[in-house]
Amino acid sequence: MAEPLRIALAGLGTVGAGVIRLIETNAALIAARAGRPIEIAAVSARSRSRERGVDLSRFAWVDDMSALATRDDIDVVVELVGGEDGPALALARAAIAGGKGVVTANKAMIAHHGLELAEAAETAGVALRFEAAVAGGIPVIKGLREGTAANAIERVYGILNGTSNYILSTMEATGADFAQTLAEAQRLGYAEADPTFDIEGVDAAHKLAILASIAFGTRLDFAGVDCEGIARVRAADIAQADRLGYVIRLVGLADCEESDTGEARLLQRVKPCLVPRGHPLAHVTGPTNAVVAEGNFSGRLLFQGAGAGGGPTASAVVADLIDIARGEAGAPFSVPVADLVPIGRAEGGERTARTYLRFTVADRPGVLAEMTAAMRDAGVSIESMIQEGRPEEGGEVLVAMVAHEGPERCIRHALSLLADSPSFTDRPLAMQILA
Amino acid sequence: MAEPLRIALAGLGTVGAGVIRLIETNAALIAARAGRPIEIAAVSARSRSRERGVDLSRFAWVDDMSALATRDDIDVVVELVGGEDGPALALARAAIAGGKGVVTANKAMIAHHGLELAEAAETAGVALRFEAAVAGGIPVIKGLREGTAANAIERVYGILNGTSNYILSTMEATGADFAQTLAEAQRLGYAEADPTFDIEGVDAAHKLAILASIAFGTRLDFAGVDCEGIARVRAADIAQADRLGYVIRLVGLADCEESDTGEARLLQRVKPCLVPRGHPLAHVTGPTNAVVAEGNFSGRLLFQGAGAGGGPTASAVVADLIDIARGEAGAPFSVPVADLVPIGRAEGGERTARTYLRFTVADRPGVLAEMTAAMRDAGVSIESMIQEGRPEEGGEVLVAMVAHEGPERCIRHALSLLADSPSFTDRPLAMQILA
Repeated sequence: MAEPLRIALAGLGTVGAGVIRLIETNAALIAARAGRPIEIAAVSARSRSRERGVDLSRFAWVDDMSALATRDDIDVVVELVGGEDGPALALARAAIAGGKGVVTANKAMIAHHGLELAEAAETAGVALRFEAAVAGGIPVIKGLREGTAANAIERVYGILNGTSNYILSTMEATGADFAQTLAEAQRLGYAEADPTFDIEGVDAAHKLAILASIAFGTRLDFAGVDCEGIARVRAADIAQADRLGYVIRLVGLADCEESDTGEARLLQRVKPCLVPRGHPLAHVTGPTNAVVAEGNFSGRLLFQGAGAGGGPTASAVVADLIDIARGEAGAPFSVPVADLVPIGRAEGGERTARTYLRFTVADRPGVLAEMTAAMRDAGVSIESMIQEGRPEEGGEVLVAMVAHEGPERCIRHALSLLADSPSFTDRPLAMQILA
Repeated sequence: MAEPLRIALAGLGTVGAGVIRLIETNAALIAARAGRPIEIAAVSARSRSRERGVDLSRFAWVDDMSALATRDDIDVVVELVGGEDGPALALARAAIAGGKGVVTANKAMIAHHGLELAEAAETAGVALRFEAAVAGGIPVIKGLREGTAANAIERVYGILNGTSNYILSTMEATGADFAQTLAEAQRLGYAEADPTFDIEGVDAAHKLAILASIAFGTRLDFAGVDCEGIARVRAADIAQADRLGYVIRLVGLADCEESDTGEARLLQRVKPCLVPRGHPLAHVTGPTNAVVAEGNFSGRLLFQGAGAGGGPTASAVVADLIDIARGEAGAPFSVPVADLVPIGRAEGGERTARTYLRFTVADRPGVLAEMTAAMRDAGVSIESMIQEGRPEEGGEVLVAMVAHEGPERCIRHALSLLADSPSFTDRPLAMQILA
């Protein structure tokens, strides 16, 4: 059998320990499939003494993580430190400069610095892979880079954040509200102590930007993701959506359309949406992730699985290592960075959708007339409306509407007409209905 | 840019025409992603004059298909002729012997002769790929070969035949019978004039055997697939299953367990099953296919999409060509054929499952006592039983039971005890409940 692929692990949290366990448990089949063994040569983490449930004694311990980049007993550095820059980015840069391949699960780093790293890796002739950075154990980067490689991708979208999906699907199952469900998710370990990145959609936006770059062959543009989290979704919204035949999901969606002037425009957004109950994403519950790619020949493809966790993420990390061991690494973003096209940002206002609108109003005469007048003046046509008979706590009444398919700018205009009205007890919430 | 990959198409039916359209429509992006253009150099089919909606004038027309194997302007032969052997197999063998790669959508040929062809391809140092042979446009061979390569696969199962799934999900939606739904499916083009291979499970068995070989690293054993079709599923079964919280799907499933003596044993079966409504496969309707792979680290992964059709199948064919153009073809069955392990067949009788049983009985006293006595004597414990009050047409009464989790051999024994009874108007039907 050929020479082993020798790797170093930087970072020994849940995923790092998972990688060690996986490589030990499945060593024989990995060697068979990769055509050569994959061996851990060295490890590095902040604390050497922390209990991780894995035996580190057979690996060289390296205190100074950056030294991994220059060791000559290592072919690939596996970066599992995390963080957008700092030590993770320094290590990735140094490893590539040192002629080593890099495999990472670090979505923030790839979303911010992926192109720079990919370009460096291409120049150095080393591999850079990040399957584990998007949707945990689901081989969706491979699915897009290779599985759908024959297709022009029309849309790529999905449920990219397990914490948000856990919260929304739990709210759906229990009827509890957001704050209570978040607290419970934190207690159970589905949400972090500081859940901002998850519930504000930033984590999903990292992943979406990576997927969009590969799907559309465009330069990664994380800053171009229009992002809104789930914190304003109420139990009442979920109940109304249910009555109308929908569930609410945090959906990351990217598509590429032509502008009026014929130029390509990339839309990237992460927002809570209403998903029809018959759509595959409606059945994705708990911390599961799912990605849909719509190709011009393949049609709609769905990839679904565990979006996080030590085992699934390790599975993706080691799949990358097996590709590298097989000599099948290819360009990190499917085509060389130099061939990625900069695509301008879509403004979004001309996009049409059916839209769910929720207002919470002080229960007094004339409010409905005020709302419907604003809709009329903005050119928004109302398909259905539900007013909850029983005032909610605090004397407010909830009014939910579905607007007929129409341009987003009209919805925005209607909301702006109502922005200064004293009739509302909370800012209205608009959510598009996924088509 | 590098030299083009020059291909020949043998067979110009729906898929062949789809491949031509795809390669023309997406030429620029294919060249970018493959690193070189993919060019059709020659085509061959039975009839030159048939109208296919594509322009063949730019390709060399070859009357004698077998001549494609020796042309020196061709790198890869795309075999889309179909059929387990005959011209397709002759062409594949000759092409490999002629030093050409082979890409095929031919599940019957791969199920029967895949190992021989793969071994020849490995010896000749050429590629053999067959993504399109399993689940149409879904990149599930890639998913198993590469996406889950780090995992020991515990089970692989799914909905592998679009015709059967169309029929079952249509029966579910309409309440119509099998025969009527099949006729309608034939009229709409979802079922062939001779639907035997689809409704008897043979087509699904071809695909399952291919998946099992890759998933478990075992020598492909199509003859070892235990196969039963959907023709005996009645509208009443679907209605009973619905009451109990299930849908009925034709599921192909393979797993690998240890026998009493510690040897690995491969179970491969295609059978109609009851699928719990919360399971992702329960939401797969129409001609869609879906495959679940359960890895020991990845957990459950689902791949879903169009299982047939010119566009999706062409998408899979060209994905294989792009891999070959990139120089990333690898071993056809993930590991070299010489390293595939022969695994004995599981007998299945000791496997436990909850089981749905349906009897149609002449409506007369004592029949229930006869049935329940047989269950008792065979050691089958009944969890629930429904007897339809209203005798069906022909004076028969339908009795459906769910047996508690228990070994299959007990179910078989119970049915054998009742085999000679004159009380039944039709052979009982037993379907396992997917866990």
